[in-house]
Amino acid sequence: MDITAHMHQLGQQARAAARAMARADTATRNRALSLIADAIERDADLLRAANARDLEAAQAAGLAPALMDRLALSSAAIATMVAGLRQIVALPDPVGEISNMKVRPSGIQVGQMRVPLGVIGIIYEARPNVTVDAAGLCIKSGNAAILRGGSEAIHCNRALATLVAEGLVGAGLPQAAVQVVDTVDRAAVGALITMPQYVDVIVPRGGKGLIARLMAEATVPMIKHLDGICHVYIDDKADIDKALAIAFNAKCHRYGTCNTMETLLVARGIAPTVLPRLAELYATKDVELRADPEAFAILAGYPHLVAATEEDWSTEYLAPILAIKVVAGIDEAMDHIDAYSSKHTESIITEDHSGAMRFLREVDSASVMINASTRFADGFEYGLGAEIGISNDKLHARGPVGLEGLTSLKYVVFGHGEVRN
Amino acid sequence: MDITAHMHQLGQQARAAARAMARADTATRNRALSLIADAIERDADLLRAANARDLEAAQAAGLAPALMDRLALSSAAIATMVAGLRQIVALPDPVGEISNMKVRPSGIQVGQMRVPLGVIGIIYEARPNVTVDAAGLCIKSGNAAILRGGSEAIHCNRALATLVAEGLVGAGLPQAAVQVVDTVDRAAVGALITMPQYVDVIVPRGGKGLIARLMAEATVPMIKHLDGICHVYIDDKADIDKALAIAFNAKCHRYGTCNTMETLLVARGIAPTVLPRLAELYATKDVELRADPEAFAILAGYPHLVAATEEDWSTEYLAPILAIKVVAGIDEAMDHIDAYSSKHTESIITEDHSGAMRFLREVDSASVMINASTRFADGFEYGLGAEIGISNDKLHARGPVGLEGLTSLKYVVFGHGEVRN
Repeated sequence: MDITAHMHQLGQQARAAARAMARADTATRNRALSLIADAIERDADLLRAANARDLEAAQAAGLAPALMDRLALSSAAIATMVAGLRQIVALPDPVGEISNMKVRPSGIQVGQMRVPLGVIGIIYEARPNVTVDAAGLCIKSGNAAILRGGSEAIHCNRALATLVAEGLVGAGLPQAAVQVVDTVDRAAVGALITMPQYVDVIVPRGGKGLIARLMAEATVPMIKHLDGICHVYIDDKADIDKALAIAFNAKCHRYGTCNTMETLLVARGIAPTVLPRLAELYATKDVELRADPEAFAILAGYPHLVAATEEDWSTEYLAPILAIKVVAGIDEAMDHIDAYSSKHTESIITEDHSGAMRFLREVDSASVMINASTRFADGFEYGLGAEIGISNDKLHARGPVGLEGLTSLKYVVFGHGEVRN
Repeated sequence: MDITAHMHQLGQQARAAARAMARADTATRNRALSLIADAIERDADLLRAANARDLEAAQAAGLAPALMDRLALSSAAIATMVAGLRQIVALPDPVGEISNMKVRPSGIQVGQMRVPLGVIGIIYEARPNVTVDAAGLCIKSGNAAILRGGSEAIHCNRALATLVAEGLVGAGLPQAAVQVVDTVDRAAVGALITMPQYVDVIVPRGGKGLIARLMAEATVPMIKHLDGICHVYIDDKADIDKALAIAFNAKCHRYGTCNTMETLLVARGIAPTVLPRLAELYATKDVELRADPEAFAILAGYPHLVAATEEDWSTEYLAPILAIKVVAGIDEAMDHIDAYSSKHTESIITEDHSGAMRFLREVDSASVMINASTRFADGFEYGLGAEIGISNDKLHARGPVGLEGLTSLKYVVFGHGEVRN
């Protein structure tokens, strides 16, 4: 099979389906989502059987335990997928809304209509739930999707593709509105990210290595984040209890997520008070602390204490490891963040209003927080309903990306025969 | 001089200046704009002298008359530049506004704050007024700018750069907030579009050839349109008087602009009525009509009638030439637009509500109009106050791009010590 030709064919089919999706009304798109949810519920046993084949092959191939975990599709995971689809049905339709309507002196009325982007390419690892989540968000937002999941999940993804197609066709929508790439050949990814004539945007979900590789080759624009080097800054005007709770939660709630704190900055005035008490908390989780000389001196005696090197300030550990630096105050904290942050999420802990508002205004990251855990940087927590990914870029969508990030605004003009003078 | 090293230095300076610009309050940025306007007014004679040197060199080099026109800076053009800056002062500040604020079940409050993009690179032809317009829009929106104008305007741009710097410094802002590239070496452009570490977005303003060249090489994202192949579709339910006025205005108001109609589609039912009357109007301007066989038969006897070829449907004439095609109705019109439009602006002329709303919803262009001339697709006409350019892309900004297109939204979270469960 000529992979490039095959991918171009998928692209052409997606482009044609995208026009039909953009025309489809809300009820039709919701009906497709409900039918897919019903079909998944009905065929849960078949899905688990397909997943068992994937797991067997993956075990034989020696897949790492963490990846095996992500690949596994339990009954609970299937129920969550179904519930997720029904939540998407309940979300308001982003498409067709006209906003900012105004009458101009010429007599024309100008506004902006929210419209689907067109064709979305999604590249992800061997996680079957992403197949359903992504399909659901693309259908709801009136887009066509081309999904390329990790090859280890191929049997399960094939089974899911059949059920998604059943729902689309059942609602009278084109089957090609969601196409699952049915080949494990990696050339399919190379083709998908270099056909801007068929694909409007790529949403890659995966580790830093995958994203960096795609960035180097893609000619289709991407909604992506490379990594999450998130900071919490404890100001000398911080409430100690809030500081302890947030700095512990931001590191220890989950280690492997992109919104986990990787570097803690502490104001010099409060460091001797707050760091020893924080160390007691981190000790309960055996968190390794990589400290700059000043923090190192304060933390002397902590069982997992290491001297930080320059590299620590730009490392995403995704592990029970935390870099700690003592700073003079808010300005040095913001300078450090400006130099080392991946512009994902930063939080200041302070009771000082002016300092908090400066931090909010001046820190150039996708999410900037006051007195809250960085772990809140998430589509569900922000109320987007669901998220297709997170963007650290400034153009188009920034931060957690929900249905709105899969749409665009076009200008609409209502005239009455007006011409320009 | 090592051009790449020089451009990287400008980039570093711009990046540092961008932080100061993002911090600057509204009054400070407006003060800089007013001081620049005052300085230009004061030094109008010096500017005309610098422009005279450019014009002399351009004439000696045999620059085309149309380009000489754009290069020339009359007293009226200087007054327009000054008035433009003062209009920008009067526009609302887009930066700092927080919208969509909501309280989430966790207790945190989430909203979105509008923030500057950072560093904007602008590449344009030898039009001194663009130097001032672009500087004004970037200063107002809290960005730093690197401006690279056509080399023929170098003396005038140098003089303007001095006045812009005077205004910035006078308001206490960094001089590097607006840097005019002071070399005619074309390698400067190559460097500017390939330094994403310093430049957040490129806005190219120029002909299709320039844009296509930049697209092939740029690694910095661009806000751009390649060309404007705009359509007017006269439906068989059109009001004839509106159809005549709009089809004449959309072609003949100005030939060289990107929102000028290049192809006219006419429904079969109304073509015999409307085309002969339109031909009378076009004849007064000696417009050449390139007609498909059906329109050709109706227009027989028109003095400048040519049989259209396939190429005509995708040609931006920028001249008194118009392609005309008879279609069965709205579906064939939308199919033709889907196949040939550059997705800039399309207008339907009809009194039929359902057809009009289908066209508005289904046509996938940056501006879609009902009963209005395509010439209205313009930042001033839409009420944006001023425009930095026009985008045919779907990501980020689409259509005329004003101050808002030079900004981004970041999530802001107000917490009270919340952690994730």
